Amino acid sequence: MINQDTICAIASAQGGAIGVIRVSGPKAIEITSRIFTPQGYLPLEERKAHTLSFGTIRSTEGEIIDEVLVSIFRSPHSYTGEDSTEISCHGSSYILQQVLKLLIENGCRLANPGEYTQRAFLNGKMDLSQAEAVADLIASSSAATHRMAMNQMRGGFSKELSLLRDKLLHLTSLMELELDFSDHEELEFADRTELTQIADEIERVIARLADSFNVGNAIKNGVPVAIIGETNAGKSTLLNALLNEEKAIVSDIHGTTRDVIEDTINLRGITFRFIDTAGIRQTTDVVESIGIERTFQKMGQADIVLWMIDADSEVDLENLKDEILPHCEGKNLIILFNKSDKVSTEQCEALSQAFTDVDAPKLFLSAKQRKGLEELETLLVETAALPEISQNDVIVTNIRHYEALVRALESIHRVQDGLQMNLSGDFVSQDLRECLSHLAEIVGGAFDVEDVLGNIFKHFCVGK
Amino acid sequence: MINQDTICAIASAQGGAIGVIRVSGPKAIEITSRIFTPQGYLPLEERKAHTLSFGTIRSTEGEIIDEVLVSIFRSPHSYTGEDSTEISCHGSSYILQQVLKLLIENGCRLANPGEYTQRAFLNGKMDLSQAEAVADLIASSSAATHRMAMNQMRGGFSKELSLLRDKLLHLTSLMELELDFSDHEELEFADRTELTQIADEIERVIARLADSFNVGNAIKNGVPVAIIGETNAGKSTLLNALLNEEKAIVSDIHGTTRDVIEDTINLRGITFRFIDTAGIRQTTDVVESIGIERTFQKMGQADIVLWMIDADSEVDLENLKDEILPHCEGKNLIILFNKSDKVSTEQCEALSQAFTDVDAPKLFLSAKQRKGLEELETLLVETAALPEISQNDVIVTNIRHYEALVRALESIHRVQDGLQMNLSGDFVSQDLRECLSHLAEIVGGAFDVEDVLGNIFKHFCVGK
Repeated sequence: MINQDTICAIASAQGGAIGVIRVSGPKAIEITSRIFTPQGYLPLEERKAHTLSFGTIRSTEGEIIDEVLVSIFRSPHSYTGEDSTEISCHGSSYILQQVLKLLIENGCRLANPGEYTQRAFLNGKMDLSQAEAVADLIASSSAATHRMAMNQMRGGFSKELSLLRDKLLHLTSLMELELDFSDHEELEFADRTELTQIADEIERVIARLADSFNVGNAIKNGVPVAIIGETNAGKSTLLNALLNEEKAIVSDIHGTTRDVIEDTINLRGITFRFIDTAGIRQTTDVVESIGIERTFQKMGQADIVLWMIDADSEVDLENLKDEILPHCEGKNLIILFNKSDKVSTEQCEALSQAFTDVDAPKLFLSAKQRKGLEELETLLVETAALPEISQNDVIVTNIRHYEALVRALESIHRVQDGLQMNLSGDFVSQDLRECLSHLAEIVGGAFDVEDVLGNIFKHFCVGK
Repeated sequence: MINQDTICAIASAQGGAIGVIRVSGPKAIEITSRIFTPQGYLPLEERKAHTLSFGTIRSTEGEIIDEVLVSIFRSPHSYTGEDSTEISCHGSSYILQQVLKLLIENGCRLANPGEYTQRAFLNGKMDLSQAEAVADLIASSSAATHRMAMNQMRGGFSKELSLLRDKLLHLTSLMELELDFSDHEELEFADRTELTQIADEIERVIARLADSFNVGNAIKNGVPVAIIGETNAGKSTLLNALLNEEKAIVSDIHGTTRDVIEDTINLRGITFRFIDTAGIRQTTDVVESIGIERTFQKMGQADIVLWMIDADSEVDLENLKDEILPHCEGKNLIILFNKSDKVSTEQCEALSQAFTDVDAPKLFLSAKQRKGLEELETLLVETAALPEISQNDVIVTNIRHYEALVRALESIHRVQDGLQMNLSGDFVSQDLRECLSHLAEIVGGAFDVEDVLGNIFKHFCVGK
């Protein structure tokens, strides 16, 4: 047990019928018992673990603060791994505050944010990646984000990392063995080809995990979509129509939207993160120029670019194409002809003609009249092309994990290079240890040289 | 058991670390068990009441929705009096919705607002006044509102009513007895003086309860304070200074505040309900005239009237006094000379002189510079003169209860008159029954003629 103090906090949101206060630490049951008068039950200290007791919480003056239910958990069978209680009160913020106050007067300390999960981690109830998944799980708002967080919390990612770690330890052990016993002629070591095969296998797994972040991030934070186009093409109107609310300012004055506004919207189960941008226009207005620069900058982050063209305007389309298309390379471009209700069939035909050389889906719509929105949604969902996530898929969603994986990948690449160049085992071992250490960061465990030695003597004892 | 269906609902507010779902009804345990896989525990049906089981909630496809703790309660030892479960999940709205969906798919119905407490009432776990107190308790935001609600929820009011009911039944029985057996010469009945004494005692208790509503309402909804005065005297500025925020529009244009804005503010533990009003001014502007009429109307609801006078203006004070003072009769008037920072000591002296004939506390202040605010707070708290509430005081806070008490009071007054005028027992009995019926409304019980008869035969059996 690392923590000697007992902490308390309101665990439920305030404002419901029921409010829950959690107490955890060596004195959790003793302190709760001091403010709780059971009604027809034994004192809390004498109650079995995983039972509920009904009774009253009373102030030091004996005034009844609330009628409550108290749950008891005993170490190590609790969320934190410590002795714990949960007090289920009426959800009045006044009552919750009073109960907290009493707990503190009786020896508790107010918990820091995340301290319960931190204690669970420190007490070995979960690793760091699982602890991080708890926050993701609570924040999950769709089937996909929920599945990813649940898999991670239940140790899917940890298990994958543990398998990797075993393989890396195996490889390291082989390298160390080669180093330590290379003068023993009678021992036979794995040749470099075999070592390279193991390293390649490790590289593939790490690369797959790192790659999954693209999907994981898109699912968790939304597929980034930039809406660009001439000023007054109806970008804000489209965003509002999709959002079904008025978050961006819409007006008929050219160049209204000068700030880059982001908003997420869930279309058929997929979250899109929309980036509304300033209009693209040749201008001497300094503020607008900055807005346009930012527009192109923001496009860099987008997976999908919606280029809106005012079907009813008479701008030089060839000029615009020259300006915009170079910024769309490597993006999923969709071309939208807006205000299509205002133009003739001939004009539509002419517009289509003008864009035959651009390889992108094209759609005529009217954002204002909400026409063509459904087709656009279908197009967006198809373009996002996010895979169906099952609860068994290990998907990286956390940027910290992604960065650790990228560093681990760099290390294993150096291992592969070293093996290929037949470098001394010393150098290769160093990179292997680094790779292990980056992976260990994810689960919050320290990489220990003893692990390697332990592994050697466990699996490769040579009878010395 | 009145309800045959099983209901479910989210009982906690959404957004915390923990979310709680309640299930109640004859199939609560069975349905919860169907979606819950215990981890190292017996199936829910075989678990004892008042225990907790850890495990997973799984969708019909076997996908894990969450790791949860399930509490079990068995009839009649639960909040509703029915078999119940409480599912404690991670507080994600997605998870809570999914669990609800699963419960509904397995035979639950979504609970209506207040249906848990309604079932508790219908199953005899609490009376109507106690059930109403649950909502008050959850909404309680100060020590005083909490104490009143807690007393009522724990049956303090119900007990008082039950004592009253006993006295009324006793009186009714005596009257009926007199009627039924008045020809039996050998029986001795209570004489009318004794009956009158009992009636007087009942009247005193009902009157005290009805009177307590004044205090109860002031504590619960705030002491009503009207701020009145000439336009531009600084009423809105004062309100804002007290509220410490900008809810009313403040400007220098005369007659800005045309709407009656109400806001509550807690000053030293007492809630005040401030009524900001349109300025009082002779005007031909129709909208303003309506505002002024409403100002005087609103004054009728106020306990305390703050009359603000611009110390720096040159209005005809005698004229204003004639206009305003008649509306202040029966109110606690406080006169505020605002903008006192702008005037000389001589002007202050002159103002004081002009108001020597008005019997009210007077205060010089500057709302804009926040000077004199503390003195005003002290004055308000002293003027409100709310008694300290203890948890044993029975205070009526509910307008429904108050109205029932007023009607009961009218009935008992008729009883007293009837006894005084020596009316026939028939008439008096009728009023007694009405009085009983009004009190029964409060706790939600129906008044039954059998009660009276039962009471007769229980206490007054004459051997027939």
